Amino acid sequence: MDLAAVLLITSVFLVLALILLTVSLMRNRGTARELEAALADESGARDRAALLLAIASAVNSSLALEEVLNVALTHAGRIMGAVAGAMYLVRTGKTEMYREASYNLNTRARGGMRKINEEPLSSALSAMRPLVVKLDEQTAPGLDTGGHPQHVLVVPIQRSGQLMGAMELYLNAWRELSEDQAGLLNGVASQAAIAIRHAQLFQAQEENALTDELTKLPNRRHLAQRFLQEMQRARRHHNAIAFLMI
Amino acid sequence: MDLAAVLLITSVFLVLALILLTVSLMRNRGTARELEAALADESGARDRAALLLAIASAVNSSLALEEVLNVALTHAGRIMGAVAGAMYLVRTGKTEMYREASYNLNTRARGGMRKINEEPLSSALSAMRPLVVKLDEQTAPGLDTGGHPQHVLVVPIQRSGQLMGAMELYLNAWRELSEDQAGLLNGVASQAAIAIRHAQLFQAQEENALTDELTKLPNRRHLAQRFLQEMQRARRHHNAIAFLMI
Repeated sequence: MDLAAVLLITSVFLVLALILLTVSLMRNRGTARELEAALADESGARDRAALLLAIASAVNSSLALEEVLNVALTHAGRIMGAVAGAMYLVRTGKTEMYREASYNLNTRARGGMRKINEEPLSSALSAMRPLVVKLDEQTAPGLDTGGHPQHVLVVPIQRSGQLMGAMELYLNAWRELSEDQAGLLNGVASQAAIAIRHAQLFQAQEENALTDELTKLPNRRHLAQRFLQEMQRARRHHNAIAFLMI
Repeated sequence: MDLAAVLLITSVFLVLALILLTVSLMRNRGTARELEAALADESGARDRAALLLAIASAVNSSLALEEVLNVALTHAGRIMGAVAGAMYLVRTGKTEMYREASYNLNTRARGGMRKINEEPLSSALSAMRPLVVKLDEQTAPGLDTGGHPQHVLVVPIQRSGQLMGAMELYLNAWRELSEDQAGLLNGVASQAAIAIRHAQLFQAQEENALTDELTKLPNRRHLAQRFLQEMQRARRHHNAIAFLMI
């Protein structure tokens, strides 16, 4: 057999091997790309779960209503990069929500009111999920730092199907919510719902402990508590204190 | 140029190309393997975070101490595949812990006692982390289903460095704890610590609301509550009821 024939056969084999290798390289690249995408998904999901866990711990770490509201609100606001936020709670038997906490607003933290069946609340509350709504000039709040954000992300807070309140997160521009963000906000809202309920139950029990059932007047326990407080205050400020019994 | 020379040069190029391709294929395979390992890590971490979040929600969903204890205990037991479990709580000013909840034990849920400075608690409590300890025949508990597990996984429950109690998870065999498992158990323990503290505060406040501060006797609120309960019970069982005022 001559050299040319041997070389020809070798070349043909080499070309075949080359084709096979190229095909498997391409397939491998595809797998690597798929794996990379899956990895990005997974680490996103892990980050969200870890974030939600941290928020759940923070929200549930107190039985004081004001603290619970502020922690839930600022965490939700931070997730969405909101310039300001407010937390509204339903009072039993009312069709209004009252502002119980806020940050970065130039008004008092408490005191504002929103009707449940009017915008900006109604669309989000009837959809029962986080929703971005445009505010008109009248309802746009003033910021501590100046400016009036024209968009609000409304996050309903509910517990076993019952509406407890809503968070309003003010945005400088309209924004589409990704499914991940909506899921995260719903998670924060459901953690907040439990923590708020517990804080309310504790507050009610505390009020019970300090008032007389029949007359609703402060009781002996209240007297002891206030007396101690006033004693401590007088001592702190080096004031005199008088106790008058009629 | 003759054919042999052309074929030879082609072959040489082909061999070079083959080597290059093989090298990049190998590198790609390495990347894919690394990605696969990273993916497994990530999804493990995501599963742990999601599990801990679910447990945090379950543990924090009640203010009733008994429920909090049972939920935390059974969740921790399920993670470790424990055949039985018990929850001990420190009473203030005591060097003992008392059993306040348990599952699958043939004794009463409440009532048992452990000295903090004696085994099986002391090694785990001084290490302040979950630890598997061997039980002697005297301390090995009896199971509902028969048998006496000889190993116990002790999980200390602490809050801001203060010991609140410990979970005992009974195992049929000695087991090395992985770092992930230890982390998960610590997470459950710290969630349980907060929920237990809140339940205790609520219980204390409830007791305050139902007793007179001076005499520690049940007050008017307690009377109203019990009266309603007894009325309902009588109605349910179609019994007569008498109310005696002295």
